[in-house]
Amino acid sequence: MNEAIKNLLTRRSVRKYKPDMVPEDVLNRIVEAGTYAPNGYGRQSAIILVVTDQEVRNKLSQMNAEILGWQQDPFYGAPVVLVVLADRTAETCVEDGSLVLGNLMNAAHAEGLGSCWIHRAREEFDSPEGKALLRSLGMEGDYVGVGHCVLGYAAEEAPAPAPRKEHWVYKV
Amino acid sequence: MNEAIKNLLTRRSVRKYKPDMVPEDVLNRIVEAGTYAPNGYGRQSAIILVVTDQEVRNKLSQMNAEILGWQQDPFYGAPVVLVVLADRTAETCVEDGSLVLGNLMNAAHAEGLGSCWIHRAREEFDSPEGKALLRSLGMEGDYVGVGHCVLGYAAEEAPAPAPRKEHWVYKV
Repeated sequence: MNEAIKNLLTRRSVRKYKPDMVPEDVLNRIVEAGTYAPNGYGRQSAIILVVTDQEVRNKLSQMNAEILGWQQDPFYGAPVVLVVLADRTAETCVEDGSLVLGNLMNAAHAEGLGSCWIHRAREEFDSPEGKALLRSLGMEGDYVGVGHCVLGYAAEEAPAPAPRKEHWVYKV
Repeated sequence: MNEAIKNLLTRRSVRKYKPDMVPEDVLNRIVEAGTYAPNGYGRQSAIILVVTDQEVRNKLSQMNAEILGWQQDPFYGAPVVLVVLADRTAETCVEDGSLVLGNLMNAAHAEGLGSCWIHRAREEFDSPEGKALLRSLGMEGDYVGVGHCVLGYAAEEAPAPAPRKEHWVYKV
C-alpha cells in the first residue's frame, strides 16, 4: 500500500504520553507540514504556536481543564502542545485551522509520534488570560483558537480504530 | 524524506482537470482515507457523498456557480465531486468535515490525482434544492455542507506553492 495512504489510515488519537521531549528537528518537520495545509483563498489565515516550555504548557492545560471542569491534565501528559489559531476576520478561519491540525496529526504519525486534537482553544484564547498570553508572545491581530494538537511519544499501544459507522458514504 | 511527510508538503490545489473518470478502486481508496480522519468525541459526524454521475455533478456545479455569481464551472472541469457534509447537531461538525476533506485531498495527491476544496457547500445544501437532493439519495438527518473536494487528473502542471507567510509559527 502507498505509504502516504497507509499513514492516513493508521493514525490514531493517543491519550497517554511519555514525558520525553520531542527533538527539535522532528518537531520542525511536523510544524512545516502544518503550514502547507490547503487554505481558503490563499490567505494562510492560520498560525501555529509551538509550546515546549513546560510552564506555559501547564498553564494552558490548567486553563483548558477549568473550561472542561476536569481535575486531570486534558493534554494527557503530552510534553508538546501545538496551538492552532486563525485570523478571525477570515471567513474560512475554522476550516483553515482544522486543515492545519489535520496535517500536524498526520505528520506526527509519519514521524512515529502520537498526537490528539484537544478542543476548547476558542474559549481558552477568547479569555482575557489567553489574549494576554498571545500579546506577551508578540502575536498581534484578532485570532480565534481552533484547536490544540498535543504531541509526544505514546505511552501505550494505539487502540484499534473504532469501526467506521454505517452510512459513511453515499454514491450517485 | 518520509513519503507521508513529502505527500503533505507537495500537495497543491489543482484548478484545471482532464475529463477522464477516476477508476473506482482509486476513488474507493481515497474515500476510505477520508473516513479515517480524526473526529470530535468519536462521533464520526461527517458523511461523504461521492458524485460521479455527470448530471448530478453538473447540477451541483450550477448551484455553486449561482451562489458565487459565476458563469463558468466552479469545479474547474473535474469529473468527480466528493461532497462532505456533517451532522449539524455535532458541536464539531465543521472541524470534523474539514478533517475529512483534508484526508481526501492528501489521499488524492498520494494516488496521483489533483484535487481542490470548493467552498459554499453550506449554502448549497441549506437550499430547498440541496435538501431535496439529499432526500432523494436516502440521506436522512440534518446535515450541514462543509465543502466539496473536486477530484480528477490535473490538466496542467501544479503551480509552485505560494511562499509561506511570515509569522506562521511562534515558539515558546
